[in-house]
Amino acid sequence: MIALQELTEELVTANHVLAHERVVDSFGHVSARHPEKPDRYLLSRARAPQLAEIGDIMEFTLDGKVVGAEPGKPYSERFIHGAIYEARPDVMAAVHNHSPNVVPFTVTKQKMRPIMHMCGPIGSEIPNWDIRNKFGDTNLLVTSMEMGRDFAKTLGPHTVALMRGHGSTVVGRSVREVVFTSVYMELNAEMLIKALAMGEVTYLSDGEIAAITKGRAGFTFERGWENWCHRVGRPFIPRDKTMGEGFSKTDT
Amino acid sequence: MIALQELTEELVTANHVLAHERVVDSFGHVSARHPEKPDRYLLSRARAPQLAEIGDIMEFTLDGKVVGAEPGKPYSERFIHGAIYEARPDVMAAVHNHSPNVVPFTVTKQKMRPIMHMCGPIGSEIPNWDIRNKFGDTNLLVTSMEMGRDFAKTLGPHTVALMRGHGSTVVGRSVREVVFTSVYMELNAEMLIKALAMGEVTYLSDGEIAAITKGRAGFTFERGWENWCHRVGRPFIPRDKTMGEGFSKTDT
Amino acid sequence: MIALQELTEELVTANHVLAHERVVDSFGHVSARHPEKPDRYLLSRARAPQLAEIGDIMEFTLDGKVVGAEPGKPYSERFIHGAIYEARPDVMAAVHNHSPNVVPFTVTKQKMRPIMHMCGPIGSEIPNWDIRNKFGDTNLLVTSMEMGRDFAKTLGPHTVALMRGHGSTVVGRSVREVVFTSVYMELNAEMLIKALAMGEVTYLSDGEIAAITKGRAGFTFERGWENWCHRVGRPFIPRDKTMGEGFSKTDT
Amino acid sequence: MIALQELTEELVTANHVLAHERVVDSFGHVSARHPEKPDRYLLSRARAPQLAEIGDIMEFTLDGKVVGAEPGKPYSERFIHGAIYEARPDVMAAVHNHSPNVVPFTVTKQKMRPIMHMCGPIGSEIPNWDIRNKFGDTNLLVTSMEMGRDFAKTLGPHTVALMRGHGSTVVGRSVREVVFTSVYMELNAEMLIKALAMGEVTYLSDGEIAAITKGRAGFTFERGWENWCHRVGRPFIPRDKTMGEGFSKTDT
Repeated sequence: MIALQELTEELVTANHVLAHERVVDSFGHVSARHPEKPDRYLLSRARAPQLAEIGDIMEFTLDGKVVGAEPGKPYSERFIHGAIYEARPDVMAAVHNHSPNVVPFTVTKQKMRPIMHMCGPIGSEIPNWDIRNKFGDTNLLVTSMEMGRDFAKTLGPHTVALMRGHGSTVVGRSVREVVFTSVYMELNAEMLIKALAMGEVTYLSDGEIAAITKGRAGFTFERGWENWCHRVGRPFIPRDKTMGEGFSKTDT
Repeated sequence: MIALQELTEELVTANHVLAHERVVDSFGHVSARHPEKPDRYLLSRARAPQLAEIGDIMEFTLDGKVVGAEPGKPYSERFIHGAIYEARPDVMAAVHNHSPNVVPFTVTKQKMRPIMHMCGPIGSEIPNWDIRNKFGDTNLLVTSMEMGRDFAKTLGPHTVALMRGHGSTVVGRSVREVVFTSVYMELNAEMLIKALAMGEVTYLSDGEIAAITKGRAGFTFERGWENWCHRVGRPFIPRDKTMGEGFSKTDT
Repeated sequence: MIALQELTEELVTANHVLAHERVVDSFGHVSARHPEKPDRYLLSRARAPQLAEIGDIMEFTLDGKVVGAEPGKPYSERFIHGAIYEARPDVMAAVHNHSPNVVPFTVTKQKMRPIMHMCGPIGSEIPNWDIRNKFGDTNLLVTSMEMGRDFAKTLGPHTVALMRGHGSTVVGRSVREVVFTSVYMELNAEMLIKALAMGEVTYLSDGEIAAITKGRAGFTFERGWENWCHRVGRPFIPRDKTMGEGFSKTDT
Repeated sequence: MIALQELTEELVTANHVLAHERVVDSFGHVSARHPEKPDRYLLSRARAPQLAEIGDIMEFTLDGKVVGAEPGKPYSERFIHGAIYEARPDVMAAVHNHSPNVVPFTVTKQKMRPIMHMCGPIGSEIPNWDIRNKFGDTNLLVTSMEMGRDFAKTLGPHTVALMRGHGSTVVGRSVREVVFTSVYMELNAEMLIKALAMGEVTYLSDGEIAAITKGRAGFTFERGWENWCHRVGRPFIPRDKTMGEGFSKTDT
């Protein structure tokens, strides 16, 4: 299990990486479940991710109450995170974003689906949550547990759910995984828009998505993480480079 | 009320931010109404926004006459600003730009409308002013009060008006607000072009736009402003972080 | 008349600016007619424009023979420049480029025409030269005076001519002008591709193009030039800021 | 023949250049055949190309066994390289990549073909290998010699083969050549997508592609290489600037 201090540092790095890779701009956020207290999560105070520092990371109860130090106002949309951690014991980290190539898919009938192996784990079925269905005309922000839970219901067992006219939220089993999925979701969207303009598209099959998802582990995540740490000038703390199940036919 | 010196510094920052965020290139300009004399406005001398300095900020009467120091030639299109301040007492700042993803909307029948919550305040009805309608074949520049007033008439009570074959002008109640709206207008245009290529688009509803606009205040503006100041290496002067009316269902 | 040394410095700056603004990459070149000897022109040795230095600038006769120092191999396509200076006494500078948004227009029937005032001077009629028409299957390079003259014939009195499967060449009355036109041609192409995807496009009228072209002078060029010099870290030597004929209805 | 140490340095530079020019991101790799032992090849350990250092370059037998120092885990897809060196004695270097504008062509029926002279050598016939045809649902990675050989069979005598839902692999007679081809393949794809959106496209003819390919030699490669070395801060070691056969009608 990752120690609290190490996770906090990793969360700061994740903030900077997501900003650098254009998954978030001045808005969007990334959280992690508390490594020792599963009913708590860690999230920066309301601040542009690129600027988040260690002292900005706050602790919250699942229903969004601040625990301990409060270096500033919390994100008004923290309920997205809490509701997901409540509904999904498997989720250890989440990214809420306005990833610019993904947003167009939230406002059209065109489905976002993976076309390239790096992007496979976003899954073949990506729901699109419309806040208007239950809450009518709002400012589209998820600012209560009721709203967060409604979103979590749409997310269900999936890795990503779109949010109409807003963006998306991605979940994972670790900070590195969720950042990885988010970066490649944005790339998949960018490439898919171009592919769709050229005619019928061959998507990854369900079997391929399953094989990719099963085989994606430390060996893959570390490669991206080291590179991204370097780009944003954050220390790279190596971790396990295990290959996932069935990743290679030759190596172990 | 913001002091003159602070506003002048903020205007310089706004120039740099707009250049960095690709709202303006070597051309385009941002002005603010004088904080003490409502019949005056502040605007850089004719210079690429990225290069504007404190000593470049000039004071003008609403009809575009220089008051006081004249560190260089004024912008030939300053009449856009004066005519708007004359017609719209609510407007405290304005950005004239050639935002590259917005220009295509000025020369096609396709309407620019907001598809994403951050961009809502550009409004659902964005007029497109064609200088040719009244002035025939020109170099498209707004170089007299007559032209500026004609544009201001088309702008009417709106937040943005496009200018055919030219760009657009955005207005707001503060420098931070008008910069914010301009940055997200460009992003909206970029994303909308992609969405339109994929089929029918669901725009924000009028009720959503109203809710977003009402709720957008310091809590939102400060987040972007701090980030942009950091990116262009300008000091960030914190200001009030009030949430707008109805912004959150939980926090105040 | 600009002195030889100043022009040589300006040519180096132009090389760096065109690379920074993505008009040229490792290839493409910019030349100037010799300020004292109209039958000579100045052009860097064959080198990526971003790297061109004072010592790289060579002098050529109009038919492409080296005069004086030869710091390295000359560009194999210098005949584009010589043939234009031979045919067009009004031309004082030329940019040959593979501007990436312009290339698509060289291989489709879709005409490139200006949609935005800054880009007006590329003109409403832009010919597309196909080397294959006269020379059959080649490597598409203009490597002889015969080829250069054939291109110059297609260019005729225009400001730009496209080159099928290759790029384009832009001409002007000064280095600053030709760089300006080249940068805004690339922007026009980028924006036009997006506009065309959204439906019927309103182009600038011939009257507008004429008014813009007549009014474009030092006041406009200096704004871009100062900004670009700053971006590439080259000294900015101010020159005359005269407004062109009919530029403003108010200022002079 | 290039010495081993010089080639190793060049390979490190190639890694950095490909990352800078967006041919590879955290993934993808470039190899070179051993200059003295044709049944060996050189390839970095599994690491983001931007970070590859001299000490990361490993030596492999053609069937992917490590020879000598093992500074870390090898790339799981090294079999792409080995199988190509085995099947193609003419190949001295290879780039496997997920070049983002190329991927859309791997999942649509739209053929990628060169439209611009710099890109001609990718060839008029570019096969698209689908791993699923022989191996069914996999994670799409080429992780055994059997898979590598199947890919090499599809590549055949070509310079590039696409890999469905994955990327492509480019081969060449030197590191500089293969990097050059890879950079301009990405550019060709970017421009072709835009051209296709505007109507029927005129591709380079087979005769033109042949002429370009024959004429492309040191004079061309050195121009790009010097520029790219400069951009990534790596030393530029000049090599021969010979013009290829028929490159110029005037110069030699």
